[in-house]
Amino acid sequence: MTTTFSPVITGQSLIAGRAVEGTAGTAQALNPATNEKLEPAITLIDDRQLAEATAAAAAAFDTYRATTPAERAAFLERIADNIDALGAPLTERAVLETGLPAARIDGERARTVGQLRLFAGVVRQGDHLQARIDPALPDRAPLPRLDIRQRHIGLGPVAVFGASNFPLAFSTGGGDTASALAAGCPVIVKAHNAHPGTAELVGHAIVRAVEEFGLPAGVFSLIFGAGTSIGQALVADPNIKAVGFTGSRGGGTAIMATAAARPEPIPVYAEMSSINPVFVFPGAIEDDIGALATGLVGSLTMGAGQFCTNPGLVFVPSGTQGDGFVAAASEALRVTQGSTMLTRGIAAACGEGVAKLRNEADVTVVAEGQPGPTENAPGAVLFSTTTDSFRENLQLQEEVFGAAGIFVRYNSQDELLASAEALEGQLTATIHATASDNATIAPLLPVLERRVGRILFNSWPTGVEVGPAMVHGGPFPATSDSRSTSVGSLAIMRFQRPVSYQNIPDELLPAALQEANPWHLNRRINGQQTAS
Amino acid sequence: MTTTFSPVITGQSLIAGRAVEGTAGTAQALNPATNEKLEPAITLIDDRQLAEATAAAAAAFDTYRATTPAERAAFLERIADNIDALGAPLTERAVLETGLPAARIDGERARTVGQLRLFAGVVRQGDHLQARIDPALPDRAPLPRLDIRQRHIGLGPVAVFGASNFPLAFSTGGGDTASALAAGCPVIVKAHNAHPGTAELVGHAIVRAVEEFGLPAGVFSLIFGAGTSIGQALVADPNIKAVGFTGSRGGGTAIMATAAARPEPIPVYAEMSSINPVFVFPGAIEDDIGALATGLVGSLTMGAGQFCTNPGLVFVPSGTQGDGFVAAASEALRVTQGSTMLTRGIAAACGEGVAKLRNEADVTVVAEGQPGPTENAPGAVLFSTTTDSFRENLQLQEEVFGAAGIFVRYNSQDELLASAEALEGQLTATIHATASDNATIAPLLPVLERRVGRILFNSWPTGVEVGPAMVHGGPFPATSDSRSTSVGSLAIMRFQRPVSYQNIPDELLPAALQEANPWHLNRRINGQQTAS
Repeated sequence: MTTTFSPVITGQSLIAGRAVEGTAGTAQALNPATNEKLEPAITLIDDRQLAEATAAAAAAFDTYRATTPAERAAFLERIADNIDALGAPLTERAVLETGLPAARIDGERARTVGQLRLFAGVVRQGDHLQARIDPALPDRAPLPRLDIRQRHIGLGPVAVFGASNFPLAFSTGGGDTASALAAGCPVIVKAHNAHPGTAELVGHAIVRAVEEFGLPAGVFSLIFGAGTSIGQALVADPNIKAVGFTGSRGGGTAIMATAAARPEPIPVYAEMSSINPVFVFPGAIEDDIGALATGLVGSLTMGAGQFCTNPGLVFVPSGTQGDGFVAAASEALRVTQGSTMLTRGIAAACGEGVAKLRNEADVTVVAEGQPGPTENAPGAVLFSTTTDSFRENLQLQEEVFGAAGIFVRYNSQDELLASAEALEGQLTATIHATASDNATIAPLLPVLERRVGRILFNSWPTGVEVGPAMVHGGPFPATSDSRSTSVGSLAIMRFQRPVSYQNIPDELLPAALQEANPWHLNRRINGQQTAS
Repeated sequence: MTTTFSPVITGQSLIAGRAVEGTAGTAQALNPATNEKLEPAITLIDDRQLAEATAAAAAAFDTYRATTPAERAAFLERIADNIDALGAPLTERAVLETGLPAARIDGERARTVGQLRLFAGVVRQGDHLQARIDPALPDRAPLPRLDIRQRHIGLGPVAVFGASNFPLAFSTGGGDTASALAAGCPVIVKAHNAHPGTAELVGHAIVRAVEEFGLPAGVFSLIFGAGTSIGQALVADPNIKAVGFTGSRGGGTAIMATAAARPEPIPVYAEMSSINPVFVFPGAIEDDIGALATGLVGSLTMGAGQFCTNPGLVFVPSGTQGDGFVAAASEALRVTQGSTMLTRGIAAACGEGVAKLRNEADVTVVAEGQPGPTENAPGAVLFSTTTDSFRENLQLQEEVFGAAGIFVRYNSQDELLASAEALEGQLTATIHATASDNATIAPLLPVLERRVGRILFNSWPTGVEVGPAMVHGGPFPATSDSRSTSVGSLAIMRFQRPVSYQNIPDELLPAALQEANPWHLNRRINGQQTAS
């Protein structure tokens, strides 16, 4: 970037291009490393101000979705450029607000702008429109067929909830915003109140791109509000047509209930709760017990365990071989030091979750790491239990958001399969094995396919590649809608719906479906995919 | 077909291949042309019998979804063959149970088997699996990429509710059953109690195909039960993972509420309520007023108006030209004779809906057709009102299931656009116009795109082509989920979800994703679609 872009953080919402002082009180974020308040306070919007944002989004929809692929792609790329142009102050603010290290924030920032550019490429290429043409068959018997064409359009204005654990990649300019804008939907982001300054900076970058492209101001708004109430009002607003959320199971299910109770129910993509089981097979332990142990502990403690894909459940064979692995992992864990968690509240909830597990019958602590030197930096913990206890006690499937994991020791393939069948829906399942384990693994795979969105081999679930084949999703309660992914280019599908056009004069057809194919799309003709 | 297949109608459910006498009472269908009871009575299953069906479906899922494209396609084709082999007795029974003419039933039967064969072609071709491959990039900086692959799998056992108005095409072996089986999902059909004999005959055809292919018996069940209670229990059953429903708004929203309240909420595809607005422009009236009038009346009265796409709302310009069209349509309607409706209850509800409209302020009757000679064959009715009344009175958007329509007279383009904005979600919107009307139409199209699933020009919405580009769906309350279609090959998507595979050894990958591409699929590699 040649020019830098340095908006001042004011704590005001950005409603359809205007900085708006909220009239429903204030809130203030804390530096989780010190528990000190961060300036400025944010001003919280009221219902009337919210209605301005959603009305502007609705008014912007038809104009925005009429942009060409080239225009919309360039707009997404400009957002990425503008986020780049925010320079070091964005990283510094995000570090202050989240307690995450600068290197992690910079990596997440690269992911965020890369994601925007990926969707620009998707939009420019155009396959997401899924254009289909069934030409007229005037001579067909017994009845002629009229010309029918189909394309996908955006659902309408989308509400996106910023996530606590990814202040950039799953927040203001994150995955849901990128895919919704790519699909032609205006976006209203409800900022996470733990990182409002980060949200505001990125919000300015998006608003600036909206202005630079002369788009209607309602294409994007960023709002600060009292967490639960304004969020529920946003989901209930009749102008909102879909919701993207990343957060707790309680938050997600509350949004699902509100969306389902609307006069017009709307789709909700809530990514909520996952404990990401890991299945360790004998071959893997035999192969390299040390790498396996340090790999697990690294994945478990990465980012203070605050990843949706944190491996919270590890099935390990009983017997001396499994004991050896547990001992090696315990040894690796004991020398780890806790990192600052995202908020005081998250650290407290982690502590409560760990305390609850300490009190569960048939659950024992096998290792504890060191707490960190800052506030809100608890040490990691590893527990152990049996497959019987795991299957009988649904509490053991409750996500502890943080660096806490449970070993489940299994005696047989049957126990392993029964435990897998007892799993709730998950984002991921990971298998560590060698070819010698294939016979045991084969019957496990179909069980896992029914329960998870992504199956991994000899790798770790933390670190979610942003690419065409990624699925970051899964059956409830991992997400509210397993038919979709929140990461990767397939995510554009979640904010679209099909519309078909029967016997429409060519000059009134959308460009994607016109006979001359002005956008050079790959179109499916008579059911067969054709290249442009 | 060389052999005929003549199962006896017993009134028993078909649970995982076994004829089961229900233990929760009996019910009996009526011949709607005479109101006479039809033998035999059906026996209604209880909750325990229901649980057998759903458990068998869950147990069958992994085996069934492991079938190859060739096997699954042949299975769908065999179902079609077996329905053909049911011969004349199927048509005769459906005529008795529905009051629909034999020619209509035969046409619907051709559509039903054609639909099964269409999905066989879709499965054989394989694009629905949406295979994506992002090969490993071991040398990528800063981090290498592991091999990631993605395919779609079936959601799990699907509950399908037979529709009253299509005893074949939207019932036991209809669209939802065909697309769910195509997607690899076992199916449990809750028969519509108005046409149980038809359901049972088709059920036997499917069970026979399951047996002929040696598939697990739980792949298909047909159940008879007390309408509301067993339907709700089916939707609430934890083994059911998705629902397909075609029926009333009340029935559909009750199912949506049950599905959303489950511990694990599931997708519901309910196709419910649509009044399918028609927009008549001056050019069309000028062009051929007679064809336009008889076309409208034909579409309105076809099948006693019992189509989801029945045109119940017709926007007509005010003034003498529009008056002339209303007069011509009225003339055409007055000579029509009512046909037998599907059930006594449906005819009664139609009568109540018409009576309600007669009592609405600012709504006048402009023409009435003749009642038919049988029981339950009311005459058609056309009403008229103004755009102001239409926009103020949401009652006028309530579907009257039957041959009843309302003219809404508009004075200006602004009135027309405001009325379109006031529409609830619809399956279709139809425009009758000539090129001279294009300037008025252009701003209407984006409004309609936001509100409907299919836009038609100079044709009629009744008669839904079963093809790759068809969308039979639309925003609520037309359907519960606008992201999908219930007709056409795109419908297979509704019963699928994506799963990705990271770093999995080739020999453990599903065939669709193996390096050698044994199924010769078109796969998306690094984001680019490639031909096999």
